[in-house]
Amino acid sequence: MQRHGKETMKYGAVLNRFLPGILENEEATKTTSQDDISQNVEEVQKIIGYDFNDRNLLRQAFTHTSYHKDCISYERLEYVGDSVLNFMITKEHFSKYPDLPPGLLSPLRAANVDTEKLARAAVKHSFHKYLQHGKPILTRRIQSFINVIPEYPLHSHGLIDAPKMLADVVESTIGAVFIDSNSSIDTTWEVAKILLEPIITPEMLETNPVKKLYETCQKHKLKVRVVDMWSHDGSFEVFVDDQMRGKGMCHVKKEIALNRAANKAYNEVIGMLSVGNINI
Amino acid sequence: MQRHGKETMKYGAVLNRFLPGILENEEATKTTSQDDISQNVEEVQKIIGYDFNDRNLLRQAFTHTSYHKDCISYERLEYVGDSVLNFMITKEHFSKYPDLPPGLLSPLRAANVDTEKLARAAVKHSFHKYLQHGKPILTRRIQSFINVIPEYPLHSHGLIDAPKMLADVVESTIGAVFIDSNSSIDTTWEVAKILLEPIITPEMLETNPVKKLYETCQKHKLKVRVVDMWSHDGSFEVFVDDQMRGKGMCHVKKEIALNRAANKAYNEVIGMLSVGNINI
Repeated sequence: MQRHGKETMKYGAVLNRFLPGILENEEATKTTSQDDISQNVEEVQKIIGYDFNDRNLLRQAFTHTSYHKDCISYERLEYVGDSVLNFMITKEHFSKYPDLPPGLLSPLRAANVDTEKLARAAVKHSFHKYLQHGKPILTRRIQSFINVIPEYPLHSHGLIDAPKMLADVVESTIGAVFIDSNSSIDTTWEVAKILLEPIITPEMLETNPVKKLYETCQKHKLKVRVVDMWSHDGSFEVFVDDQMRGKGMCHVKKEIALNRAANKAYNEVIGMLSVGNINI
Repeated sequence: MQRHGKETMKYGAVLNRFLPGILENEEATKTTSQDDISQNVEEVQKIIGYDFNDRNLLRQAFTHTSYHKDCISYERLEYVGDSVLNFMITKEHFSKYPDLPPGLLSPLRAANVDTEKLARAAVKHSFHKYLQHGKPILTRRIQSFINVIPEYPLHSHGLIDAPKMLADVVESTIGAVFIDSNSSIDTTWEVAKILLEPIITPEMLETNPVKKLYETCQKHKLKVRVVDMWSHDGSFEVFVDDQMRGKGMCHVKKEIALNRAANKAYNEVIGMLSVGNINI
């Protein structure tokens, strides 16, 4: 087993390098040659800083069920990786934050292993370039996700819609390293740390936008009213003292639509409070 | 670290030994002397086959938040134990069932680590005798659970209502062993195997009663109708070909009431099919 140094890439560099690849991905993934596959394996090994004893495991980790009926998909590796990752983060937090109660440990773990965090990790480390799948819609969803990331540099807490497949491939890669390294938690954690960087700390953990809005309004004696129109048009509207201050939409997930509306209203309220014109 | 042999006890023996203790538990837990605590630690160590380097960890593992404001409760250990247990079962199943897809691995893991399975493990290994808590209602709920266990020797799949605190204490014990053994998965798995015995296999995994009922009725062209009266009186009624064949109640959890009704209806349908009088 050899270890490489970290490869640090800015989002800008990742975008420039892989946007053309993403747009062509639909066909490209279907026609990958043996040479390309070997090169892809080399590249991913370099990114994650781990050389596989069984390279088939890494190929499997990057293969979606839609790719080819004769290929083994990443599902089992993802199942293991999810559990290993959850365990490693729990272990890390338990020793690192000896006084943190589970009520705070739990959201901290969630922020580090949820779909959005892992999908961000996948994009940051160019995993989407190497994904083998046969669903054009996934390519488009990945592209939309990449476009919206710059708006929320660290974590949007559900405000943006992250493709699950991107999170899956991070988990399957972690699962593959775990199996390949003969169940070595130490080795797997080294890889996971590279992938999850920056690991979210309690200080970085932002409050949910809905909670933030309610807390701020309560403090300043402002009345909040939320209008749920999600089943009608995928939207939520937030009124503060009977004035509409935020509208959010998301047809895929109700919670995201609500969070978006609350976030806009929160920013408006904060802006108004800071200039003292809340009643204008 | 010393290891003990397994202590195997039948449910009958457990019941006879601890029913009086359970009934007196409310006061007993409040007046435990230092000598009693030391003896309890000895006994639990013998049950789980593991001697602690730091016995305070084991005491903490058996202390509910309701016990005493100056005592550290099991919450953090339970948080770790839950994650360690999930990981160990996942790892075990991954290697033991190389061809099982995640769609089957997932319910198999759930059946081995869910509240009911762990609460059964707690009762089987007499953990409830050593629990330190200050809530009389928990003692009564544990007693009701113990009374109903004999009806479902292995797992009821939600048909019976298991007290979460019993499951918690199994997880906190596993967490305590993990921390005390310097994060040794091998040592922790040895203890978990003793506690979870018998570990549920794919062959032992019964189908959910609702699914079983629907599948059987579909096969025999019988019409199923479920009447939800849960918000009214905590019950569900199941009609097969317009005849009421099963009624189930549970005021705590809707799913359990439905499962009970479906289970009764299923047993009736199977009985009728076997004697060929389904239309009588």
